Amino acid sequence: MRDAYHEELDALTARLVEMTRLVRSAMARATTALLDADLALAEGVIDADKEINALHHEVEENALELMARQQPVAVDLRTLIMTIRMSADLERMGDHAVHLAKITRLRHPTSAIPAEVRSMIVEMAQIAERLITKVGSVIASRDVPTAAEFETDDDAMDRLHRRLFEVLLSPNWKHGVEPAIDVTLAGRFFERYGDHAVRVARDVIFLVTGERPDQLTEDQLAGRDQE
Amino acid sequence: MRDAYHEELDALTARLVEMTRLVRSAMARATTALLDADLALAEGVIDADKEINALHHEVEENALELMARQQPVAVDLRTLIMTIRMSADLERMGDHAVHLAKITRLRHPTSAIPAEVRSMIVEMAQIAERLITKVGSVIASRDVPTAAEFETDDDAMDRLHRRLFEVLLSPNWKHGVEPAIDVTLAGRFFERYGDHAVRVARDVIFLVTGERPDQLTEDQLAGRDQE
Repeated sequence: MRDAYHEELDALTARLVEMTRLVRSAMARATTALLDADLALAEGVIDADKEINALHHEVEENALELMARQQPVAVDLRTLIMTIRMSADLERMGDHAVHLAKITRLRHPTSAIPAEVRSMIVEMAQIAERLITKVGSVIASRDVPTAAEFETDDDAMDRLHRRLFEVLLSPNWKHGVEPAIDVTLAGRFFERYGDHAVRVARDVIFLVTGERPDQLTEDQLAGRDQE
Repeated sequence: MRDAYHEELDALTARLVEMTRLVRSAMARATTALLDADLALAEGVIDADKEINALHHEVEENALELMARQQPVAVDLRTLIMTIRMSADLERMGDHAVHLAKITRLRHPTSAIPAEVRSMIVEMAQIAERLITKVGSVIASRDVPTAAEFETDDDAMDRLHRRLFEVLLSPNWKHGVEPAIDVTLAGRFFERYGDHAVRVARDVIFLVTGERPDQLTEDQLAGRDQE
């Protein structure tokens, strides 16, 4: 049976997982709004970000309050500090959905995304969706081998980000400067989003092991030393 | 006279101030490299970022270690948590200098910055320089009224960032897509840099007052309630 203090820690973890759900929904809606030039959907994403921010402040305040009250040590202290940090990264991921929604709003009723990069944006959105789902699951499970996979998972996002530039800079690009800027920024928002997901995964690893991922061996990250 | 524990806290503050010096130098050199297409200078910025990252890890580890050992409460606990957070923001500011340096490297021997936006980039760099200098000084002084000025200071950066887009999207823009993308990203890196400076200033306010800046009145932020 868990004591009241550990129940409070569990409640914080549950709030982080709830944040990942809100962020996933925001990013999915922001992408659809961007591709379909759907203004109402974009406005909804901008508006709903308040909820993510409020949850972030709540997590932060509860964690600080718990620290002050309980004077935790070792893994409990690390858990609280990493909780604050993960919450900040999730909040920023929500901001990237808002940035996408603002591009949509700026260009409405035109779509900011020309046809030839549409499939790449769809693919980036699919990676974003897989990443945030997995972030929610490693926050809950604290599974180090799964958290260690994020660097590789995010490589696909970085590859797409580079390919996007190749399309923008190819002689076949007929859309001129404005759509190129929009696509550049949209691509960067997805890339940053992936980066924050990697940071959360690293924080889970640090939380569990007390070691930074770059100080662990491949075997430790894969959990093979625990067998 | 200060005890050993508070001397360690002071040493952490001194390291944060040292980080602001390294970041200021990185950003100044990255801007010169960008404007002059100076590859060696750009490579130097990319290389020197290791030092900023190492200092960030050191600050973070020392702060965690102090927390575990000393079990601080109230303002001391807040100081350590805010120290970790400020260090992370400073580290990201250094990353933005690196991003600029990488644009320089990618376009070398051509300058990525066409003549008509040069003066705006110079102006953004000047604001960046003023912001980081002021960040160093509020970290050291913990002066709340000065920290409260950052939101206004950063407005000038945001205005320039918007003006930059106006130039890129005007019918007079003759440089096509590639320089437009470079300038878009460079502008965004300066804008993010300013944003991180504002976050550090907010953390100083929270450290001193225990309240988030948005929960304080204008009078409290200006220090008028302390008279």
